Amino acid sequence: MVRIIGIDPGLRRCGWGVIESEGNRLRYVACGAIRPPVEQPLALRLAALFTGISALIEQYAPDEAAVEETFVSPGVRTALHLGQARGIALATPAIRGLPVGEYAANLIKKSVVGTGHAEKAQVQAMVRALLPTASFESHDAADALAIAICHAHHRNHALMVARA
Amino acid sequence: MVRIIGIDPGLRRCGWGVIESEGNRLRYVACGAIRPPVEQPLALRLAALFTGISALIEQYAPDEAAVEETFVSPGVRTALHLGQARGIALATPAIRGLPVGEYAANLIKKSVVGTGHAEKAQVQAMVRALLPTASFESHDAADALAIAICHAHHRNHALMVARA
Repeated sequence: MVRIIGIDPGLRRCGWGVIESEGNRLRYVACGAIRPPVEQPLALRLAALFTGISALIEQYAPDEAAVEETFVSPGVRTALHLGQARGIALATPAIRGLPVGEYAANLIKKSVVGTGHAEKAQVQAMVRALLPTASFESHDAADALAIAICHAHHRNHALMVARA
Repeated sequence: MVRIIGIDPGLRRCGWGVIESEGNRLRYVACGAIRPPVEQPLALRLAALFTGISALIEQYAPDEAAVEETFVSPGVRTALHLGQARGIALATPAIRGLPVGEYAANLIKKSVVGTGHAEKAQVQAMVRALLPTASFESHDAADALAIAICHAHHRNHALMVARA
């Protein structure tokens, strides 16, 4: 049995979801979204993201982490902003000694829905089907659970990062 | 007297420089570059950056930190990569409770050389003139010292971030 935290990085809302995987079985543990204070300077928002993810790792004691690999972003400025949040999402579990898997958005959708071009609503519906006890209000949390599910399917493959 | 760490974020080479500022006087303390292991996965490279910056804060006990605000980057992919390193450079001092100033590249050059369009060689020459005891081999370390000097000049202004 492996416990996985999936993280959907964002500076306004950072989705997270924890699942357990044993063989072909998946079990929902928890999910939600971290909301760094938008009125604060960037450094403090990023620090809040670090503190939030650290607290989740403390609370749920996942064995491994998974983060979405790239963003479809419209411009350099957006990529820079998303990159900053993503840097924290990747580094925080690694600092805590967790192996971190990175997965492309298409692979995450394919793992959950069966096609790499699924809509958000399809991803949410499949996450609900795969994790019947999951309770989420936002698509950020559903996306984070999808990332964790993708990692459960692919963690032994090449995309899996060597143990820290 | 205030002790300042300037950080020039980068995933291959992250320049850093520590100075002291008292009134109009500047004093060089130390500088160098962190080189996260390039052969490692991204999460571990970012974690190494966090660990490296944390160790510098521990060793040199700066009161405040300063980071360059934006990058002139040729594309979305580069911006995403730089953003990840920059997220760590901004968050690590904030996590340690240091106020973090962010300064645009043009303002840094203007503070050190007198013009916002200075070449790297001019910045290095002026850093040597302003900090005669400074010893640096790389432009990353010189850039980091320039960022710290800019912060010394502007720390009481609007760009200064509120104390954590």
